[in-house]
Amino acid sequence: MAADPLSATLFALADPTRRGLLARLAQGDATVSELAAPYDMSLAAISKHLKVLEGAGLVSRGREAQWRPRHLEAEALKDAWAWLDDYRHFWDRSLDQLGRHLEAMKRAGAEDPDR
Amino acid sequence: MAADPLSATLFALADPTRRGLLARLAQGDATVSELAAPYDMSLAAISKHLKVLEGAGLVSRGREAQWRPRHLEAEALKDAWAWLDDYRHFWDRSLDQLGRHLEAMKRAGAEDPDR
Repeated sequence: MAADPLSATLFALADPTRRGLLARLAQGDATVSELAAPYDMSLAAISKHLKVLEGAGLVSRGREAQWRPRHLEAEALKDAWAWLDDYRHFWDRSLDQLGRHLEAMKRAGAEDPDR
Repeated sequence: MAADPLSATLFALADPTRRGLLARLAQGDATVSELAAPYDMSLAAISKHLKVLEGAGLVSRGREAQWRPRHLEAEALKDAWAWLDDYRHFWDRSLDQLGRHLEAMKRAGAEDPDR
């Protein structure tokens, strides 16, 4: 798959195990065995998921240690976040409207002579 | 593919044509022919992409009109945005540090007796 970088990132994220691996790496670097521990999956299956994440630039391997701990490259998530953030006003709109409604109620209350 | 909703959303977004279709629908509802117009693709290919987007709840079809215009369901992007937003501090950190550095420089300038 010769996907553009953003598609590769989103594809890599489109799997609960891969998102779980990233969540674990967000806590700190970890070896493949450490990453595999919570899963009822073979090391080979976990390695395959890690390869997808590495291919998308979301995970890198340490070079110094023999056990090559994996490291989260969260910067690679930025473009995906930015793409989604462009759509945020669509779902924030109802919150905006609620906020304005509450503001208007507050103002009406402040102007209420019986208050 | 019986993916969880978040995986289905991310998978649907992991394609430049599908992201392009959503960007077009963000401007307003459109028919399949209108959506297909900018692409050098068959209507069948565009319909297939739209089906993936519909499967993920990102696009719906109007019922009233015979030509059934497609509509963006941007709310379905919210969970994907929220997942990515949890990682934002990783790439915002350098900006935070720059901000603190500039603040410290400003304070140092304000305390400078030669100023």
